[in-house]
Amino acid sequence: MRINLSILEQWAGATGWGRRRLVPYSHMGGPGMRAEIVCIGTELLLGEIVDTNAAFLARQLAELGIDLYYKSTVGDNLERIVETLERAWQRSDLLLLSGGLGPTQDDLTRFALAQLIGEELTLNEEALAQVEGYFARRQRLMPEINRQQALLPPSARPLPNPRGTAPGIWLEKDGKYIVALPGVPLELKMLMTGEVLPRLRQLLGQDHPGLITRVLKTTGIGESALEERITDLLEVRDGVTIAPYVKHGEIHLRLAVKAATRQEGLARMAPLEAALRERLATYIYGADEERLEDGVGRLLLEQGLTLGLAESCTGGLLGHRITEVPGSSAYFMLGIVAYSNEAKKKLLGVEEETLRCHGAVSPETAEAMAKGLRRRYGVDLGLATTGIAGPGGGTPEKPVGLVYTALAAPGGVQVLCHHFPWDRTENKLATAQAGLTMLWQYLAKQ
Amino acid sequence: MRINLSILEQWAGATGWGRRRLVPYSHMGGPGMRAEIVCIGTELLLGEIVDTNAAFLARQLAELGIDLYYKSTVGDNLERIVETLERAWQRSDLLLLSGGLGPTQDDLTRFALAQLIGEELTLNEEALAQVEGYFARRQRLMPEINRQQALLPPSARPLPNPRGTAPGIWLEKDGKYIVALPGVPLELKMLMTGEVLPRLRQLLGQDHPGLITRVLKTTGIGESALEERITDLLEVRDGVTIAPYVKHGEIHLRLAVKAATRQEGLARMAPLEAALRERLATYIYGADEERLEDGVGRLLLEQGLTLGLAESCTGGLLGHRITEVPGSSAYFMLGIVAYSNEAKKKLLGVEEETLRCHGAVSPETAEAMAKGLRRRYGVDLGLATTGIAGPGGGTPEKPVGLVYTALAAPGGVQVLCHHFPWDRTENKLATAQAGLTMLWQYLAKQ
Repeated sequence: MRINLSILEQWAGATGWGRRRLVPYSHMGGPGMRAEIVCIGTELLLGEIVDTNAAFLARQLAELGIDLYYKSTVGDNLERIVETLERAWQRSDLLLLSGGLGPTQDDLTRFALAQLIGEELTLNEEALAQVEGYFARRQRLMPEINRQQALLPPSARPLPNPRGTAPGIWLEKDGKYIVALPGVPLELKMLMTGEVLPRLRQLLGQDHPGLITRVLKTTGIGESALEERITDLLEVRDGVTIAPYVKHGEIHLRLAVKAATRQEGLARMAPLEAALRERLATYIYGADEERLEDGVGRLLLEQGLTLGLAESCTGGLLGHRITEVPGSSAYFMLGIVAYSNEAKKKLLGVEEETLRCHGAVSPETAEAMAKGLRRRYGVDLGLATTGIAGPGGGTPEKPVGLVYTALAAPGGVQVLCHHFPWDRTENKLATAQAGLTMLWQYLAKQ
Repeated sequence: MRINLSILEQWAGATGWGRRRLVPYSHMGGPGMRAEIVCIGTELLLGEIVDTNAAFLARQLAELGIDLYYKSTVGDNLERIVETLERAWQRSDLLLLSGGLGPTQDDLTRFALAQLIGEELTLNEEALAQVEGYFARRQRLMPEINRQQALLPPSARPLPNPRGTAPGIWLEKDGKYIVALPGVPLELKMLMTGEVLPRLRQLLGQDHPGLITRVLKTTGIGESALEERITDLLEVRDGVTIAPYVKHGEIHLRLAVKAATRQEGLARMAPLEAALRERLATYIYGADEERLEDGVGRLLLEQGLTLGLAESCTGGLLGHRITEVPGSSAYFMLGIVAYSNEAKKKLLGVEEETLRCHGAVSPETAEAMAKGLRRRYGVDLGLATTGIAGPGGGTPEKPVGLVYTALAAPGGVQVLCHHFPWDRTENKLATAQAGLTMLWQYLAKQ
């Protein structure tokens, strides 16, 4: 294993751990590094909480190139926590624990840790200062009960938690590591990012390969049509894996490769990314953290076009998505949620006759709504939705899930018909997605 | 244990299980019933997926009154799956498995099950008919690879899966039970609800106590103010527990009691619910699955009032929430997403001078927007939002997170100022919540 002790010592000095002996993990950096996540808390076993902490921790480990083989959840019961930790301690080199660090009698993680490694809990002055500091910054007296959060086994060191009372715990023993983090998701994330990841990176050494990923995001193409276009690219080349998955009505292609740096990883993925971009062309709207509304916003800015929305069945959802993008006020002028027929007539100039002859859910009304935006409000692009979200309001001719989206542009109007099979919320989501996709495709082809 | 064999036999007959001997679970119905959840899939260990299946299954078990002590996750590795199942099999009476039932070589659950109980996998004709039926209904040929999904240990029976190719698995051996379900959340839910829960209920017997819960939902009151009002009610009485928790800017009070029927449970919670309702009065907007927009919609309907929205920083989110309620078209007339100053003037009649002297984010503009809705569009209630969502656009006088909400009603206009400390998305969510809360409080006091 490679380990840069001088850097580790600097780090130890900087965080007040200077006096202790650093015990580098003897297998770290090799392929055998095994981690395990243990989530502690009865509420997780009652199903009241979806455990997002475990997924977050797992992702961090994957990015570091540390293998995770097991994840367990156990309730607030000392015997069962110790049993679970003992098994994890036998088979893994790094244990990441979440939860059970609070000050109440249900919070048993520190007691289980002490029992696991056969040490007595003692008051850790550094931890006490951290807990007291938390209350002092808020100008509140520390309740006596919170002293418990400063109890640590002598092998452990506290990790400062800026957002809560519970310090994290870092423990090294017998060449293995345990990290215990508070269960509050925001605190766990801040501690993991700020305190734990830098230490793990130091321990792993600079050129330890991590998993570098790149996600290409598509819209407007179905799963089988997409796979048909790229079948020959789906095999592993130069260690780069590729996996398509469906998310919120889009297909994402996840490229991954083990590499020492993100730069090296992206370079090794570049030929595949280029080939995918050539095959899928404008179906790809963005990558990684970009959302469809980000891609749409980018093209609207580039092309200097303004946008107006006329929403019926989406009720404002399209506007909500468009305005999730910082700076969207540069191109998004207005939205009309024309829920009643009166509003469609008064605000968008839809003719009484159109509504009477064709109905509010019709290609004619969708077209009139989109055109009305351009004519009345002078926007370059008008995007409209009208449909029957359900559960009521359907007829044999116009069933629940029947939706029209229309886009009015300088060159003319386009209307699309959709039929979604879901419930009210999902039909609204699908309609907004269809509207944004229509807008994306128009912009991408300019 | 109580078990109604005649009903079980009917059920067995109806699902084609008529020929097999029913082995009732010998400890079921007693307090010792222990369940364990095992989720199978490497993707869960990479953190790409947040595991919602486990929380769903846990909730079902809690409602049935079955104790869940452990939850584990393991990757697609036969040895590790078998190891995990063996431990679960030793310490638990009911194993719920999720994932690994697909037709590919990564799908190992059936192989692990066979190894666990020491049986050979054989082709199960009933399962084969189910898989073939899935393809036949879609008028597609069954690929050869899917035959694997009909392999079962002889002790097991397939559970029909209407939404996917993978039948579930129900297995009884040595007085213990294993249920294996596909990992696709929709398929898992349908199988659990349609096939597994009825069987478990039968096995438990009619008067097996389950956990009956009731959630009272409040808005517009802080955590400590709420706890102060109800401190003396927070202790356990007649077996009813009460726990406050914060969710999406609201405080929910979760009442729970073990009872044989929902009716009995609700009756035992009734005195506490009545006391809480008296103390918290109009802070309580609804219960259980009701959302704030449902409560608002209920009062709008009852009072025969119509609503219009004028949104700036929320961008349509308020309209989206209002229209999540089926039938909202009865009271929601229109929304204006007035993102630009032009739109505020043209559509809501906000004066040029108001915008120039006070700015778009000001109590004056919020008031003018709300009033404009009533004056121009004849709605009874006009609700407006304007603010700086961030990350850009803040100044020392008007920082990011500064938000005004205004409600124009027949009796006059009310404007509230808020300062939210979060990012763009969270500031939008908090603003919509504040607007709905303002509306709720107005309606609840009529």
